[in-house]
Amino acid sequence: MTDPPATSKGLEHVVLGDSAITLVAGETGGLTYRGFDIDELVPSATYEGVVSLLLDGSAPAVDPPSELSAELVRRRQLDDRTTRLADAVPLGLPPLEAMRSLLSLLGGPAWDYPPTRAQGLELVAKTPALLARYVRCSAGKPPVADRPDLGHAANYLSLLTGEAPTPERARALEQYLVLLADHGMNASTFALRIVVSTQSDLISAAVAALGALKGPAHGGAPARVSDMLDGVGTPDNAERWVAAALARKERLYGFGHRAYKTDDPRAVQLKRIARTIADPSRFALAEAVEHAGVAALQKRRPEARLFMNVEFYGAVVLEAVGLPRELFTPTFAVARTAGWAAHALEQASDNRLIRPDVRYTGPAPGRKWPTKAR
Amino acid sequence: MTDPPATSKGLEHVVLGDSAITLVAGETGGLTYRGFDIDELVPSATYEGVVSLLLDGSAPAVDPPSELSAELVRRRQLDDRTTRLADAVPLGLPPLEAMRSLLSLLGGPAWDYPPTRAQGLELVAKTPALLARYVRCSAGKPPVADRPDLGHAANYLSLLTGEAPTPERARALEQYLVLLADHGMNASTFALRIVVSTQSDLISAAVAALGALKGPAHGGAPARVSDMLDGVGTPDNAERWVAAALARKERLYGFGHRAYKTDDPRAVQLKRIARTIADPSRFALAEAVEHAGVAALQKRRPEARLFMNVEFYGAVVLEAVGLPRELFTPTFAVARTAGWAAHALEQASDNRLIRPDVRYTGPAPGRKWPTKAR
Repeated sequence: MTDPPATSKGLEHVVLGDSAITLVAGETGGLTYRGFDIDELVPSATYEGVVSLLLDGSAPAVDPPSELSAELVRRRQLDDRTTRLADAVPLGLPPLEAMRSLLSLLGGPAWDYPPTRAQGLELVAKTPALLARYVRCSAGKPPVADRPDLGHAANYLSLLTGEAPTPERARALEQYLVLLADHGMNASTFALRIVVSTQSDLISAAVAALGALKGPAHGGAPARVSDMLDGVGTPDNAERWVAAALARKERLYGFGHRAYKTDDPRAVQLKRIARTIADPSRFALAEAVEHAGVAALQKRRPEARLFMNVEFYGAVVLEAVGLPRELFTPTFAVARTAGWAAHALEQASDNRLIRPDVRYTGPAPGRKWPTKAR
Repeated sequence: MTDPPATSKGLEHVVLGDSAITLVAGETGGLTYRGFDIDELVPSATYEGVVSLLLDGSAPAVDPPSELSAELVRRRQLDDRTTRLADAVPLGLPPLEAMRSLLSLLGGPAWDYPPTRAQGLELVAKTPALLARYVRCSAGKPPVADRPDLGHAANYLSLLTGEAPTPERARALEQYLVLLADHGMNASTFALRIVVSTQSDLISAAVAALGALKGPAHGGAPARVSDMLDGVGTPDNAERWVAAALARKERLYGFGHRAYKTDDPRAVQLKRIARTIADPSRFALAEAVEHAGVAALQKRRPEARLFMNVEFYGAVVLEAVGLPRELFTPTFAVARTAGWAAHALEQASDNRLIRPDVRYTGPAPGRKWPTKAR
């Protein structure tokens, strides 16, 4: 036997290995995709530009990148076979349940290991197209034709609503997609990399990632932020509402993140976007809940400084661009497909099966099985 | 900043935490489910008994356990809604692709977090029933009615073939299912636990696990063992064939396992079962390939002792019970649903989000984005 191995429940502070994709600087509140700070990207970059950056490893010569953008437009068209597969998913399911099946049905031998850039672009392009079609059909509305003249974000809104969004809404959603496109080794990306590490296919990996993102401890809670804001109702009720919720031992949604010991830089950007685009009374309500929540949580645990996470003002932004709350986490997934594809490519480029050890704490070996009755 | 954290590509020797389910004693070649050695279980236990052991934490009073067995029989019936969902998956897909979609379509709010024993039994019961129905329909054959008088293993064979298997075949498959029911923190179980750690649902977690199992570096290779045996053809060709394959830098399937530094105890049991049930000429061929492969690999890397893994004689056993090779990995998944359910329950019982760190090796922050063209 060698030395006792490193132990960490939840793998906190365990380093899985190297990654050249995203730098999450939790101590200082920085987030960088391949050397580009998100504060640089949010005002300037298109989502297509960020897809190029994440998948290809360097900034495109111009943004949007013409070749990649055209390929995304081409790949977001649903051919007859894909449409038939998509129509096999029963209507009316919660959208994330539907997305898991839609992506799974998109799979097949064309996705076999190793993952490729083309597969990655297919994942990025098809995910919003399949989701939007499903949501339309579930609502009893006809599917909307793709608009090749629209960028990725604007077209997604168009596919959902049947009309081209205002430039302000399209750009706000695009900035949301840029901000959520990757976040290093979070639980969904980690699940994806484990699946790729077995040399399984990209769809199996993306479906695993989506399943992880679905959990409220990862990406599944932003709709609850909107519910919470509705519950508070008015800014002057925020302090009382927060105190009552904490007294009932309820969780406040949108507060705290394991990786950041200071402001989540995405939350800072999203608050700025929300201030621009949200209804002023809704923004004022959100800000009152933020202040009341931070103050109350700080008072309870003065040693643990808590900050807003990406879900809080993310929810306010998604409301403001016109998305219903059941599409908040699915839209997070739409954004994250770019990061998932990049991590799949990186994992496969120097692959090694990922499996940790566990410490066995069950009964000692040597027990005797009861008489067999069959 | 604190001390540099522990690093391990592939997380080898990193301990995720405690588990009271399965002891994999890699140094000594032992495998124990909750204190019962598999050498004790294989001759005595039914699969239902092992499901009870894994999910409930202790051996049943009698085996098969009557309440649990009856519940599995009840849950393996496919109601109209489930049948309709299953029929939505296009026929003719590779069975693992189909299984991913079948399980995903089985999901829905009834599976919401936290996982329960009833959900676990539902997963164990429905997985073979859905798979067998799909395989029958894909082959253009009518689905077979469930046989409540048959145990889990025998009924699975009956659902696939339309006739009750011989007791020898049923028991050999049951022993295979017992041997494969769990194996600690392998890649599929790890992916499942990550998904559960986000408080996502058991179906999302099982679908993630299935995606990982699909990879040839985990569970996706046993059919290649049969292909390899076919390629060798006769025992006296084994040595020449192995040498030629290694000269072509091809991998030999069924050799080596990360966890074991000695005989994989499952491989020992499976070889014994294969000797009993397989056609003697097939068994002789397999044994000749085993000897030739181990000798050749030993010669190349004398320091790394290589042993047969579960896939090698597992493939010979599954052939002998009459399963076509495209069902080898799906049948591995059928066995492993019990372990997945047990690990989901254990993860949820003391849950903590699982996400490791990575070391960023990309470009330094501060790069400037090209001019935006849109």
